[in-house]
Amino acid sequence: MDSAGTLSVLNSPSEMKKVSDACRKAGRKLGFVPTMGALHQGHISLVEESVRRADVTVASVFVNPTQFGPGEDFDRYERDYKGDVEKLVRCGVNYLFYPDISDIYPDGFQTTVSVGTLGDCLCGPFRPGHFDGVATVVLKLFNIVRPDFAVFGRKDYQQLRIIQKMVRDLDMDIEIVEMPIVREPDGLAMSSRNAYLGEEQRIRATAVNKALHEVRGKFKSGCDDCKILLAEANRVLRMAQINDINYIEIRDPETLELRHRAMEGDLVALAVRVGETRLIDNIVL
Amino acid sequence: MDSAGTLSVLNSPSEMKKVSDACRKAGRKLGFVPTMGALHQGHISLVEESVRRADVTVASVFVNPTQFGPGEDFDRYERDYKGDVEKLVRCGVNYLFYPDISDIYPDGFQTTVSVGTLGDCLCGPFRPGHFDGVATVVLKLFNIVRPDFAVFGRKDYQQLRIIQKMVRDLDMDIEIVEMPIVREPDGLAMSSRNAYLGEEQRIRATAVNKALHEVRGKFKSGCDDCKILLAEANRVLRMAQINDINYIEIRDPETLELRHRAMEGDLVALAVRVGETRLIDNIVL
Repeated sequence: MDSAGTLSVLNSPSEMKKVSDACRKAGRKLGFVPTMGALHQGHISLVEESVRRADVTVASVFVNPTQFGPGEDFDRYERDYKGDVEKLVRCGVNYLFYPDISDIYPDGFQTTVSVGTLGDCLCGPFRPGHFDGVATVVLKLFNIVRPDFAVFGRKDYQQLRIIQKMVRDLDMDIEIVEMPIVREPDGLAMSSRNAYLGEEQRIRATAVNKALHEVRGKFKSGCDDCKILLAEANRVLRMAQINDINYIEIRDPETLELRHRAMEGDLVALAVRVGETRLIDNIVL
Repeated sequence: MDSAGTLSVLNSPSEMKKVSDACRKAGRKLGFVPTMGALHQGHISLVEESVRRADVTVASVFVNPTQFGPGEDFDRYERDYKGDVEKLVRCGVNYLFYPDISDIYPDGFQTTVSVGTLGDCLCGPFRPGHFDGVATVVLKLFNIVRPDFAVFGRKDYQQLRIIQKMVRDLDMDIEIVEMPIVREPDGLAMSSRNAYLGEEQRIRATAVNKALHEVRGKFKSGCDDCKILLAEANRVLRMAQINDINYIEIRDPETLELRHRAMEGDLVALAVRVGETRLIDNIVL
């Protein structure tokens, strides 16, 4: 156990379990924020919410290989251990769970958790195996940390719904707290992947959120035809020379079913590539 | 909550959770025996082991539809609620968890737990989806009951190894206790499905265990060639007119890898049909 300020760093699942068992026995409310590190203001908002609600907050930093597909950016995914620790200390986090890959996936590991249809749409077809990887590692982390609640951001909206579904379907006693997307001043959703963007790409990337606002504006002015709404969004993206559009869709915010007529509260979600960098964003009508 | 003698029957997962939370808070050791009911001496041995080891024993009776394939015997699977309750009372079980299908699989349920290669061999190919159904329901039951340990029989050997693997892979703090196969005086392994056998089939079915003993006898006398050992077993089965042999194999008792040369401690497992009734059995060399 390595101590940094008031933050204790735990590397092994068994150490982590000991700490969380002791919390539970002492009747202390345990909050959990799982991350892949390279922490930005979006993560900080999740951590701060946990610190507000809990007696003890655990954050984890684990770049989970099983949620990266072949050809994805696992190897070059940003790592910033020192910066992450400083930020967590500043937020008043009590424990950082920072396991090795071999602690999470020992030799012979072979169990997978799949959440059915919720993972088949939106990002699912573009990232085969991604959501199974997410669900499996989150279930493991939940079993190791055993929190009373865990905090997730709406930026990864589909992930959030999948985890909520998994927790309900598997009878886990963990409250899932959702937090709004944190954005740069020009509207770009905070993401560790924004660091990949070149200067000119960074400027073009502002069209991603603008396109969603365009849809919302047109919806508020009375149009509920998804085809027309989405054509508008496409126009905004293409004007910024964003032509590699994985999807832009309007869906039920809970079941993620596709809409033809948009309704208040519906999800508008998109994934695009700006250069090599894949960006996602969403907005609620 | 319906009370029968000293046994309390709990129907809803939330009632069950309340009881097990209270046990944990009181520091009482909780043992769990999941079953599909129609309890016979094999189940009783599991229940008795739990009562011996635990402060509080929970048994569940739930005929899990997702582990039956199309064309399997879900509808005609034996149910004997009254008999089961009597037996559990006699054993000193404290709680029977007896949920409805809709409590376990509410509308929209869509999460699946799969244990990879361990489920691909032996019974796996003959019962597609079976072990995913087992793993998923057992994970749910474990999350509802939250036992310190759970007791399983070696009769369903592959199921036992899959559940042990799932518990390890998913970082669950539950000890899996294994118990030996309980047999009729003539060697037939106890099974709820034995009730399907006609009189003449019941006599022929004794060849199932005899075939396994034949393999062990030949192994002890110095033969380790799996081909020769299994030919012997096949001969015994065919002599009893058991010709519908799903498999008879010698495998590593932990990884379930196929052997060519048998070793002490190896698993010899088979599945056959006697008439319409599928019987499984196994023995360790």
